[in-house]
Amino acid sequence: MTTVPPAGPAVPEEPLPAVGSSPRTDAEALWSARYGWDTESRAGESPQAPGIAAVTDVIASQLAHRSVRRFLPDDVTDAQVSAMVAAAQSASSSSNLQVWSVVEVRDPQTRAQFADLAGDQRQIMAAPVFLVWIADLARAYQIAADAQAPTEGGEYVETMLVAFLDAAIAAQNAAVAAESMGLGLVYVGGVRNDPAWAAALLGLPQRTFAAFGMCVGHPDPARPSRVKPRLPQEVVWHRERYDLAGQSAPIADYDARMAEFYAGQSMAGRWTARIKARLSGPAAMSGRETMKRSLQERGFELR
Amino acid sequence: MTTVPPAGPAVPEEPLPAVGSSPRTDAEALWSARYGWDTESRAGESPQAPGIAAVTDVIASQLAHRSVRRFLPDDVTDAQVSAMVAAAQSASSSSNLQVWSVVEVRDPQTRAQFADLAGDQRQIMAAPVFLVWIADLARAYQIAADAQAPTEGGEYVETMLVAFLDAAIAAQNAAVAAESMGLGLVYVGGVRNDPAWAAALLGLPQRTFAAFGMCVGHPDPARPSRVKPRLPQEVVWHRERYDLAGQSAPIADYDARMAEFYAGQSMAGRWTARIKARLSGPAAMSGRETMKRSLQERGFELR
Repeated sequence: MTTVPPAGPAVPEEPLPAVGSSPRTDAEALWSARYGWDTESRAGESPQAPGIAAVTDVIASQLAHRSVRRFLPDDVTDAQVSAMVAAAQSASSSSNLQVWSVVEVRDPQTRAQFADLAGDQRQIMAAPVFLVWIADLARAYQIAADAQAPTEGGEYVETMLVAFLDAAIAAQNAAVAAESMGLGLVYVGGVRNDPAWAAALLGLPQRTFAAFGMCVGHPDPARPSRVKPRLPQEVVWHRERYDLAGQSAPIADYDARMAEFYAGQSMAGRWTARIKARLSGPAAMSGRETMKRSLQERGFELR
Repeated sequence: MTTVPPAGPAVPEEPLPAVGSSPRTDAEALWSARYGWDTESRAGESPQAPGIAAVTDVIASQLAHRSVRRFLPDDVTDAQVSAMVAAAQSASSSSNLQVWSVVEVRDPQTRAQFADLAGDQRQIMAAPVFLVWIADLARAYQIAADAQAPTEGGEYVETMLVAFLDAAIAAQNAAVAAESMGLGLVYVGGVRNDPAWAAALLGLPQRTFAAFGMCVGHPDPARPSRVKPRLPQEVVWHRERYDLAGQSAPIADYDARMAEFYAGQSMAGRWTARIKARLSGPAAMSGRETMKRSLQERGFELR
């Protein structure tokens, strides 16, 4: 049955801008969402930031990033994962050491175990692909072992850090690549809740460590996630010297805005309360208070 | 004086493809450079990878990434740094803790000191902006202190790692943003050569740590850098379970290709030799063998 529109004057499809205001550009709208200028207490205000004028298409898509936990059943292709890996490898690597790897997990039973391991994170089962990013000194040790060369340098905290930093920088390039293909993702730090279990699931050799996971799939448009507002730029961006005292007022402002954001998601609490909870002690660390021992057991001596 | 072209049949501007071959697409050319398929021993071969067909404009620019150490004197604007910071903040943050900061250094004297600190890295003076990415628990500690809340959770290796991972993920988004604006950059791990000096230069409070630097500027087109080939995908990309034994043959292949690459840059040696050198022991670590103590002195207890 076709609905016949009533006769009458044409209705404009978009509301006209109010007198004295101008419509927001896309960059302004994305910036507003990223910094919580679209919460109720600020609605209608225009964000002020020099960077808005410099936003490229790429930066626009970065501003629009949101963690995706609801996925369609559609597959992620081998070509898409290959392109993500190529992007990851194209990121900078400390001295070109390339001390990272990634394990692609598609097997539903393995994903179910990772979901349990990470604290009942169901999105690991919902996404067709679960990537586990590995801080990887095993390859370097193997190269040295093949030549009967010394490996003392691998025992230091610094070398462990390089492997974790390399993995993170690579993974973020893969994340940007995935989003450019229309895919969605969420990082999963919960793979660190039980490093020995994660290693067993992936057959990890000594001197490799599952740093974090990443669910990848097609976002379910019926269950979209929201952009999470971040701290005002002045809190994280310092000129010439670090300023701690100046952060208090903008943090309080952010805290109020995040309370609105959480309320809109039917969640209680404040951002600063979450920070305090996380810092409170080992009971709030989901098992990760044993990380030092876990690293040492997996061959990162932490000298 | 104008050169008059000789009369005769029109010469095609691009060589015609040889019989049985087809011209490379842009994605194939970028992929070839990234994986060293354009070295002499492989010239003319077409790279085989499923991902080539999935390359988006964003992934193409990621594939084209190269570290830039030669800059024009042109300024990087406040708007450009602001857009980089917004991109950095738009990246995922573990539990939205946002335990990182960035210090923008423009002062030439400070940059000169960082160049010394990092081991005579002159590009820090050549680039107008030097960003220092900070693993930052100081903000969280301050929030807890203001409420007289406990902070034992901040003492664990896990919490230190989260701060470093957050900083790296943020920084890589900023790097992608910078390149989308036509800027070039290079990471500088050398800021970790002397963490106490770096902290003094930036006025860093306890529980912040200069994780790495990043030179940002306009690439000098007269002194372009080359894309550095990476390991074959099969070395770093594992399916379902990690495979160490299967890496030997493709690593040997890469080692040969990198020897060609280094020779083209008037450098000697092999990639595996560099790996062995780095792993050899503290003498090859530029002072970073003291990282454990440095972290502890800066308030990261490493429990």
